[in-house]
Amino acid sequence: MATETKKLSIICFSGDFDKAVAAFTLASGAAAVNWEVNVFFTFWGLNILKKQQGRRFIGKGVLPRFFNFLMGGSRNLPLSRLNFVGISPGLMTGMMKKRNVATLPELIESAKQLNVKLIACEMAMHILGLTKADLIDEVKEIIGVPTFLEYSKNGQIIFIS
Amino acid sequence: MATETKKLSIICFSGDFDKAVAAFTLASGAAAVNWEVNVFFTFWGLNILKKQQGRRFIGKGVLPRFFNFLMGGSRNLPLSRLNFVGISPGLMTGMMKKRNVATLPELIESAKQLNVKLIACEMAMHILGLTKADLIDEVKEIIGVPTFLEYSKNGQIIFIS
Amino acid sequence: MATETKKLSIICFSGDFDKAVAAFTLASGAAAVNWEVNVFFTFWGLNILKKQQGRRFIGKGVLPRFFNFLMGGSRNLPLSRLNFVGISPGLMTGMMKKRNVATLPELIESAKQLNVKLIACEMAMHILGLTKADLIDEVKEIIGVPTFLEYSKNGQIIFIS
Repeated sequence: MATETKKLSIICFSGDFDKAVAAFTLASGAAAVNWEVNVFFTFWGLNILKKQQGRRFIGKGVLPRFFNFLMGGSRNLPLSRLNFVGISPGLMTGMMKKRNVATLPELIESAKQLNVKLIACEMAMHILGLTKADLIDEVKEIIGVPTFLEYSKNGQIIFIS
Repeated sequence: MATETKKLSIICFSGDFDKAVAAFTLASGAAAVNWEVNVFFTFWGLNILKKQQGRRFIGKGVLPRFFNFLMGGSRNLPLSRLNFVGISPGLMTGMMKKRNVATLPELIESAKQLNVKLIACEMAMHILGLTKADLIDEVKEIIGVPTFLEYSKNGQIIFIS
Repeated sequence: MATETKKLSIICFSGDFDKAVAAFTLASGAAAVNWEVNVFFTFWGLNILKKQQGRRFIGKGVLPRFFNFLMGGSRNLPLSRLNFVGISPGLMTGMMKKRNVATLPELIESAKQLNVKLIACEMAMHILGLTKADLIDEVKEIIGVPTFLEYSKNGQIIFIS
């Protein structure tokens, strides 16, 4: 008789506000019922983890600095639809607060307390010229695809693009 | 010897026309070869399930009513690319009909007949101020993340964003 | 004791440049550590596999020819964000080259050498009026959902949308 595998790995490729909320809601929801949860942030998703919440010229190299500025930080996450020059993420947060639903910073905090492992993608960090120091302290590891797959073995993997 | 698990859970986060077609094609295709299939609609994906197919000010609260109007209903699903002020979903449906491929309403109907379980996300309903009465009758359950994970255990999970 | 399953199936629905890079990075990364990898390209994802790398009126039928022209080929893949009339994919490739990270054509080549199986979706080919001859030679099979699920059984499935 096979033992149950309760392990969820989320690849968060998106840096959209609504998708970040979905990623953390799933992560915390799973961790709350005792699933092992890894969230692997790559490319646009790294915006969610940047220490500098606003737009900054960070990273090594001219192109990455320019690109990181355009990407912005966690305060600049757009909505994937109906974005209206950045009004909508605030609108959505307003609706969430009104309904007593946890907002994104609260979701990140609860993920941390529930031992959700937040991981950054080594290659994306490299392309974007980012270092560990550019990310929030909650990020414990920077790993590549093989290690991520090792962590995810026999669990379920979700890709949020 | 492990018994085969043939269970597919689809999280449909997207409300784009082309992705809805993909979600239902996968769901019906899997159900047709005897997989157990759950489709969990959340956020934008709830548009696909709205009873009112056009734009309506539904939901409780001013912001949700406004937001639901902008989101539209199943007749307003945009194409994720090349949308051209809404022409393309019709264009794609035209191509599908021409090739005798099932259109979205036909795919929903066949999913129903193949016992695909259509489920709405409790938290997204709450944020958007929607109730069971706003959704089509095919939706049998409104559940949260823990129940969804329970349903999906030992199966495969796909996230369509 | 269950034997480990090391099988990854990727559904590449997206035709965005950044997501194609993610799909092939995951595919090659997994294959390099001896996972069995299938990548199933559908709808917009078929652009990545088109033999004609530029915009061409290919496919059977007026609408599909028009639609394929608009979709473009592998040289027209847009970035999912910050696309700026097509400048960004080149910008991203520039950053990748600078960091000695494999570019998309290199990733496709290495996937091939690592025995990643590239598969095209039968129904999407049919809707878009494409035939095997329109795709690069690396594509070995054109299959439907049931066969894809059979290939993916007991592995992990990722949907890149």
